[in-house]
Amino acid sequence: MPAELLPDCELASRLFRELATRTGGSQGITRMSYGEGEQVAHDLLRQEGEQLGLEVETDAACNMYLTLRGKTAEGRIIIGSHLDSVPCGGNFDGAAGVLCGISVLSGIVSAGLQPPRHLTVMAIRAEESTWFPASYIGSRAAFGLLTSEELDTVRRIPDRTKLDEAIESSGGNVERLRAGEAYLDPAQIGLFIEPHIEQGPRLIMEGCPIGVVSGIRGSFRHRSATCLGSYAHSGTTPRPARSDAVQATSALVMSMEQVWDEAEKEGEDLSITFGKIATDPSTHAFSKIAGRVEFSLDIRSRSTRTLDRVAAKFYDLTGAIADRYSVSFDLGPKTGSDPANMDSVVISALQSACNAECVPRVTVPCGAGHDAAVFAQVGVPTGMILIRNEHGSHNPDEAMEMEDFAKAARIMTRICMDPPA
Amino acid sequence: MPAELLPDCELASRLFRELATRTGGSQGITRMSYGEGEQVAHDLLRQEGEQLGLEVETDAACNMYLTLRGKTAEGRIIIGSHLDSVPCGGNFDGAAGVLCGISVLSGIVSAGLQPPRHLTVMAIRAEESTWFPASYIGSRAAFGLLTSEELDTVRRIPDRTKLDEAIESSGGNVERLRAGEAYLDPAQIGLFIEPHIEQGPRLIMEGCPIGVVSGIRGSFRHRSATCLGSYAHSGTTPRPARSDAVQATSALVMSMEQVWDEAEKEGEDLSITFGKIATDPSTHAFSKIAGRVEFSLDIRSRSTRTLDRVAAKFYDLTGAIADRYSVSFDLGPKTGSDPANMDSVVISALQSACNAECVPRVTVPCGAGHDAAVFAQVGVPTGMILIRNEHGSHNPDEAMEMEDFAKAARIMTRICMDPPA
Repeated sequence: MPAELLPDCELASRLFRELATRTGGSQGITRMSYGEGEQVAHDLLRQEGEQLGLEVETDAACNMYLTLRGKTAEGRIIIGSHLDSVPCGGNFDGAAGVLCGISVLSGIVSAGLQPPRHLTVMAIRAEESTWFPASYIGSRAAFGLLTSEELDTVRRIPDRTKLDEAIESSGGNVERLRAGEAYLDPAQIGLFIEPHIEQGPRLIMEGCPIGVVSGIRGSFRHRSATCLGSYAHSGTTPRPARSDAVQATSALVMSMEQVWDEAEKEGEDLSITFGKIATDPSTHAFSKIAGRVEFSLDIRSRSTRTLDRVAAKFYDLTGAIADRYSVSFDLGPKTGSDPANMDSVVISALQSACNAECVPRVTVPCGAGHDAAVFAQVGVPTGMILIRNEHGSHNPDEAMEMEDFAKAARIMTRICMDPPA
Repeated sequence: MPAELLPDCELASRLFRELATRTGGSQGITRMSYGEGEQVAHDLLRQEGEQLGLEVETDAACNMYLTLRGKTAEGRIIIGSHLDSVPCGGNFDGAAGVLCGISVLSGIVSAGLQPPRHLTVMAIRAEESTWFPASYIGSRAAFGLLTSEELDTVRRIPDRTKLDEAIESSGGNVERLRAGEAYLDPAQIGLFIEPHIEQGPRLIMEGCPIGVVSGIRGSFRHRSATCLGSYAHSGTTPRPARSDAVQATSALVMSMEQVWDEAEKEGEDLSITFGKIATDPSTHAFSKIAGRVEFSLDIRSRSTRTLDRVAAKFYDLTGAIADRYSVSFDLGPKTGSDPANMDSVVISALQSACNAECVPRVTVPCGAGHDAAVFAQVGVPTGMILIRNEHGSHNPDEAMEMEDFAKAARIMTRICMDPPA
């Protein structure tokens, strides 16, 4: 690889600024899946791709592909991530991966080089499932894996728009998706790599700019569950006559903490989070036993076996706790995603590229879900690199340094010019 | 007592209907403390009292007194309860006690009898502390026990009106309250009795129309406490880096359940209720560790010793749990009231009156707080009778039968005409 070949990080900086300006509000940025902010980002990227002379295509789900032709189409390399964001989120989650890709391609174009294989930057749609409660909509659609049932029933949470209508309003072709038509063929892809900001504190804690991902956690979720008890006077209702939804829900939270303790002792990868819990503000009172608590549960693991075992345990516990506290649970729909291992050849290629660029790295599991999981699951050799980022993600305080971004882009440039066999 | 002397329950029925019509909304009835609905009830009662030829007076806190003169002013008997209600509450909580009193006096007036002692119906202000977060405002004010600090700092929750302003706008005299001027002198009161609907299920469960109260529970409360953790990504934040406010609050709820278990084993009277619990809807998410949980705590007991011991235990536990889960607790202001025992002479007079009227009764502790506690605490011989009522109180479904109300009024008539020495 020529020493003078560098990624075009100035382009990335400019695009980050434009994204911040054009999709930012009073609190962070908002790029709604198949909505205004996401479309702004796609339009911006299309324009840059055309100026660089890249081939620009979209598929039936409006994912976008910017391709620089290489010496062969065989084993093409895709660098991709998503351009949507959570509401009032940060500017880097998702966008960093796409802009890393285009800065790599721009660098190669500027140097007048032809890469060994076709290189594609993929801008993926609808990854943030806070909008549509379904995992990996864009990347699964690219492989023809979005189901008609999902297209017909999943609705965007803030405005209740149906998924099929949202895709059509962005210019997609729902009939092709219903037919299961795939735009991407796993056999034609040599390598998929997703660069992404780190969403946890580990790289910051370890003082390391880059993480090479070993595997992506899957999840098991009940996003809107309810514990139903009975409202009653806090002072006059004898203990055996109580159906206290707060006590029952707290017992469930604590019981699941014990499940986590046990799994940890066995060395299993697991996280359990009750992120939302609430009595009903229109009927609760400090002097009333609570008759209703709504809560959410998010369980994650890199092991399908662990997820299945913990889910079974969870259902057992809700039954036992319902009996003990004279309440009932309405758990609502279950959602989730399968865990995915990264390809060992890709992992070692990324580790070697870090070494060659003198970039310190740690190899880490990835706790959050990412489109890379879909590529791994359909059999594409897949990898991910995480870029150091302070304050976590999904908030306006995301703090990735462009210096660290540049390191990731250099590593990706090296992979593109000298891919693993 | 003459056999033909009966309380005027038709008057009570008519007043209940008028109250329901004039203070009812789409959901139950609302009689805000020192607000519109409470004033409607006071005006209605004043009008009836004047028509019956009773002496009508108010004190500096706008409590109202309707008096029928007896043979002597010595050892006057007061029958009283409050006329305010919780928002969207039921028609009987509070009002039943006042209307019981006026139906007793009306019966005596109609029979042309003069009672042995002065009889007063007292309509008490501001008992429901969901409006102003302070206990027994009206009855304490009648004894000059409302503090200047309370007058200056306590605000009505829905509209933030200060207590002193609310009292003045109802025609009260705040300066006299500030001076600690008492309208009632404990030494001049022979007997205070508060009839009230039962708020728990015990009389319904036991098939018994009347409960004679042995004692009133006191309370220890934190109405608006907060557990502060840190928001973080549910999938990427390692367990030791978590500050999960939901877990910590659940641990507190479960630990207090153990405290209750232990107290129960020791035979102590206790109830512990976390009636409100909520993550912040503007920042929580199913995929975020919760950084904030608001909750309320209501502890009740008939024993001051138990309340003190459990409160100390609670503060110990919040400290230990804050350490264990890397969170902090902001407990907000502490409120509460002292337990009160009913007078043994009054209890046995009420029991005897039940026997004489052939009304089955059980003698029970009262879990809810009532103005009667204030009278007991200042040394007035005090009693309470509970009237059977289905579906609890503080809701539109309160269901007291007028047949049971009539039994209570007959018992009170007997006490008025033949008071204990």
